[in-house]
Amino acid sequence: MNDPVTDKVGGGVELATCGTNVSQDAFVSTGPFQIEGPKFRQTHMASGDAPASPTAEGRLAKEFAAPSHVEAEKALMAEFAQRHGSAGRRVVLITSGGTKVPLESRTVRFLDNFSSGRRGASSAEYFLDSGYAVIFLHRHRSLYPYTRLYSGVNLMDALQMEGEGESGRVLVDQQVLPNIGAVLKRYRAVKEAGLLLPVEFSTLSEYLHLLKAAAQALSPIGSRAMFYLAAAVSDFYIPASEMPEHKIQSSNGPLQISMKMVPKMLSPLVKDWAPQAFVISFKLETDTSILLERARRALDIYRHQAVVANVLDTRRNYVVVVTCNTQAELALTEEDAGRGVEIEERIISNLSAAHSDFIAQQG
Amino acid sequence: MNDPVTDKVGGGVELATCGTNVSQDAFVSTGPFQIEGPKFRQTHMASGDAPASPTAEGRLAKEFAAPSHVEAEKALMAEFAQRHGSAGRRVVLITSGGTKVPLESRTVRFLDNFSSGRRGASSAEYFLDSGYAVIFLHRHRSLYPYTRLYSGVNLMDALQMEGEGESGRVLVDQQVLPNIGAVLKRYRAVKEAGLLLPVEFSTLSEYLHLLKAAAQALSPIGSRAMFYLAAAVSDFYIPASEMPEHKIQSSNGPLQISMKMVPKMLSPLVKDWAPQAFVISFKLETDTSILLERARRALDIYRHQAVVANVLDTRRNYVVVVTCNTQAELALTEEDAGRGVEIEERIISNLSAAHSDFIAQQG
Repeated sequence: MNDPVTDKVGGGVELATCGTNVSQDAFVSTGPFQIEGPKFRQTHMASGDAPASPTAEGRLAKEFAAPSHVEAEKALMAEFAQRHGSAGRRVVLITSGGTKVPLESRTVRFLDNFSSGRRGASSAEYFLDSGYAVIFLHRHRSLYPYTRLYSGVNLMDALQMEGEGESGRVLVDQQVLPNIGAVLKRYRAVKEAGLLLPVEFSTLSEYLHLLKAAAQALSPIGSRAMFYLAAAVSDFYIPASEMPEHKIQSSNGPLQISMKMVPKMLSPLVKDWAPQAFVISFKLETDTSILLERARRALDIYRHQAVVANVLDTRRNYVVVVTCNTQAELALTEEDAGRGVEIEERIISNLSAAHSDFIAQQG
Repeated sequence: MNDPVTDKVGGGVELATCGTNVSQDAFVSTGPFQIEGPKFRQTHMASGDAPASPTAEGRLAKEFAAPSHVEAEKALMAEFAQRHGSAGRRVVLITSGGTKVPLESRTVRFLDNFSSGRRGASSAEYFLDSGYAVIFLHRHRSLYPYTRLYSGVNLMDALQMEGEGESGRVLVDQQVLPNIGAVLKRYRAVKEAGLLLPVEFSTLSEYLHLLKAAAQALSPIGSRAMFYLAAAVSDFYIPASEMPEHKIQSSNGPLQISMKMVPKMLSPLVKDWAPQAFVISFKLETDTSILLERARRALDIYRHQAVVANVLDTRRNYVVVVTCNTQAELALTEEDAGRGVEIEERIISNLSAAHSDFIAQQG
């Protein structure tokens, strides 16, 4: 198995950087370039990113149109959280899939982030198995819990007609959908118990507003709420005011796109929207050498509870769960993978235990 | 029904612009900006787009990496075309879905074109009903013929267990998948007769190379081949040589993306790869006022047989099929839509008749 960062990390070691009092404001006040040093790939600063920029929450309200259904979804999420919280159940908000960033008002083209939604969908199943109620905030048409197990199969190849007529019964070919009986039974049980609330987004704007709504809906249950932010959220966007209305014409020549940085919602989420909750973010990189440094920096900036750090090529069998004073490597052996064990089972086991400790500490 | 361009077009009228001998080279030699006039949204010309630029085919070979499976797919397509051509059957290549344009070598982010693949998938069914054999060159996970009818349904909600145990039979709930018996029977018949060959792409590079392979595979059957180019293909890309290897870091500040224009493959397809074939391109715009002018200009430049022109908001119930000397409006009434008639049935009926005339003229 390929464990590219193994030699750089220890399991559960306390690190010196933990607990140094570096707030996000300290970073912002020196300007975003100061974080990275002199290696600039991006070439200019838009005025909205100057040091005296407004808060993330202010920019969300001003620059991203709220979707029409956000209040209705918020009411559903609040009712869901209240119902399960009252029953003593923990509730996790999972975000899953990539966000779509339109390049035109009447959208033909958009920027997208690579994500099938597999990690979010499988994680939802393990959270449900661990006794959580799950709000599944996912990209429209991305992978869904349980159904994701058969996503590679063409529905028509999985069905058989009983007899010759068109009006007879249609059966599932269980060679094509292995284990379908057990999976269907579990899906039904979850659905009938009302343990899974799906909420959909497509665009970045929808995602950001629904995340805020979810955080506010979960805040009343305090430390029993977990945020598991696995979605692949764009770092860049084009403000609606700078977007062409119509399809960009290719006959006008090559294209220059200028994108602004998306405000980081983790900051108001942790500080204002759900300050008692247990919050986990994800860090996906392609460059192994910067992964853990970035995970640790995110914890320093946002002051949340854990970062699940992973590298694109090995994300299905190796992650590091980084907290303020620990880092735990979770890895699948060849044998695990052969038995169909998924890394998400290990991640949720680790985080569920950490969440228990967190709740106990909060009293 | 909203028919925004009705007042600008007549049905089947011969137009003065048809037959004027404007070659693509005449346009290219004045530079791409001259086509559009002074309203530039794009801001500079990359050197590769200068007047003396290499041919589209040369750029394809040089700037777009060929996928490893292209030769194997080409052999399958050639065998398919030869088999059906020998049986006197017409063969249509349908392209469907949007292309993915990576922004990084190890791709986390990409530019995408809006397309569910609905038009391509439904068109495939009507071509099959009209006696064509179909090569379906489609974006991975985009809508697929027959299966597309149930794409909005969660598989788990469509199944029922017979009895209580997990090992019993699993049945389709035909309330949830209406008409499934008839659809399944048709799918099976098409599959058993070997009339549908699926080929998948994800990236723009894969699409371009597979399109060339398909054109060369279909060329031997001459005028009995049709190209129905419904895919939403990006006009812009980033050459591999200018692409960052690793994920672009948001901490470096706002992002500037410079994209080059994608070479237009319609030109070598019509002139060199499959010169006897019947070729249809699509023109999707958001701005009604420029639609027909652009459709007609495409015919002037590429000298192919027809453009299906449509506007984003009304594309499901109104198109204009533009040929060198006709333009036919195809529209669904409210009543048609209520009965479940699809605009693709009308499009394929129109094009299939035109293809018959074309074959008769060539013969």
